[in-house]
Amino acid sequence: MTYCVGMLLNKGLVFMSDTRTNAGIDNISTFKKMFTWSVPGERVITIMTAGNLATTQALVSTLDERSKAPDQRKPSLLEAPSMFQVATIVGETLREIIKNQKDEGQQASSTFNATIIIGGQINGSEPRLFMVYPEGNFIESSEDTPFFQVGETKYGKPILLRAYNPDMSFEEATKLLLVSFDSTIKANLSVDLPLDLQCYEKNSFELKYQTRITKDNPYYQSVSSGWGNALKAAFDELEDFNF
Amino acid sequence: MTYCVGMLLNKGLVFMSDTRTNAGIDNISTFKKMFTWSVPGERVITIMTAGNLATTQALVSTLDERSKAPDQRKPSLLEAPSMFQVATIVGETLREIIKNQKDEGQQASSTFNATIIIGGQINGSEPRLFMVYPEGNFIESSEDTPFFQVGETKYGKPILLRAYNPDMSFEEATKLLLVSFDSTIKANLSVDLPLDLQCYEKNSFELKYQTRITKDNPYYQSVSSGWGNALKAAFDELEDFNF
Repeated sequence: MTYCVGMLLNKGLVFMSDTRTNAGIDNISTFKKMFTWSVPGERVITIMTAGNLATTQALVSTLDERSKAPDQRKPSLLEAPSMFQVATIVGETLREIIKNQKDEGQQASSTFNATIIIGGQINGSEPRLFMVYPEGNFIESSEDTPFFQVGETKYGKPILLRAYNPDMSFEEATKLLLVSFDSTIKANLSVDLPLDLQCYEKNSFELKYQTRITKDNPYYQSVSSGWGNALKAAFDELEDFNF
Repeated sequence: MTYCVGMLLNKGLVFMSDTRTNAGIDNISTFKKMFTWSVPGERVITIMTAGNLATTQALVSTLDERSKAPDQRKPSLLEAPSMFQVATIVGETLREIIKNQKDEGQQASSTFNATIIIGGQINGSEPRLFMVYPEGNFIESSEDTPFFQVGETKYGKPILLRAYNPDMSFEEATKLLLVSFDSTIKANLSVDLPLDLQCYEKNSFELKYQTRITKDNPYYQSVSSGWGNALKAAFDELEDFNF
């Protein structure tokens, strides 16, 4: 499995992804699931991937090759005039890769599927956040649904629904994502640290902050243990049921 | 979908189940999923059902008919000498019903499946809690895993993992279950109120408390709104990330 969240804030975009991949519970590995393309001062584009690792690696390599030799290929991520066009390129490339893998060799429903979160900003328009389906079509976030999750989405969703606020700082948003990831990691073995974190400040056209959070990160440890205690304290403060 | 939780406490057993059933998102109904058989002073047995409604209704009706005319049938729930035997009867009956439905007419993988939580106490032994699979086999709760969930289990699990305590009172346990159900109801349309609640006090051999909690229940409303605020307060108290 996988867990990735992309979040649209008034201040910009925040992305977090885990790094665990597994082929069965007895075959786990660590792979990066967050990738960025940028032209400093002009555009920053980040994608996060969930699903079949061969598919997502093929997608990232294809996008990357095309962005390096744009003359010979389709429009690249670095030349697309809008984030909508970026999402279209990613969706078409993804559909093409899944189709190629499905047409040749073994057939297995959904085996080669992948789902992608794309966020970024191109100079001249606002930051935008999309989720791309294996079919190549996609949806965009909005005020009503300002974040997307892919992979193991359920355990970490209640806290996102309840504590998200579009005016959050990057520091608060990182805390929120760590709480959401920690709940997921505690419940599903196929999601695990290290976590990749990226914050993009609106109109900066460069990455404000990116880092990898490992198991021994003191802040992660304090959130992981502190959140359990904070939850218990919050729970104790609620009035008990009265028979 | 469905959401049911059975919980083993030092004081006894607590059960909560929702009542929403659906055949597609455009066809929802309300059905009870919690059923009790008892011999006052001697045994109390509660089961909660998740899965195909025709299967679970057939299971409950079959168990009920057999308990009313035990002479002509297999050992009934009211005569089984132990909770282990009760779980065995339920598992065998369930497997038989699923097999009958599968053998005749249309074939569809897992369509007729159901999963059951059984808890109760028979005089002479401790309260016990089981989860029965569609295959008819079952597992028993233990100190390490003192509760079982069936149906939409993920949204409501983090708070159970973090706030459960075997020494809880029934009042606290009810509060915990309501928080867990509220998170699930807020995230999955196929789980909804009214909720059925039952508390069984160890060695009492009668139901201490049972009720139905509806949408307009003031305590449910206070938990539902209060928990959102308590979560936000707990979240705010955690130290922010520092870039």
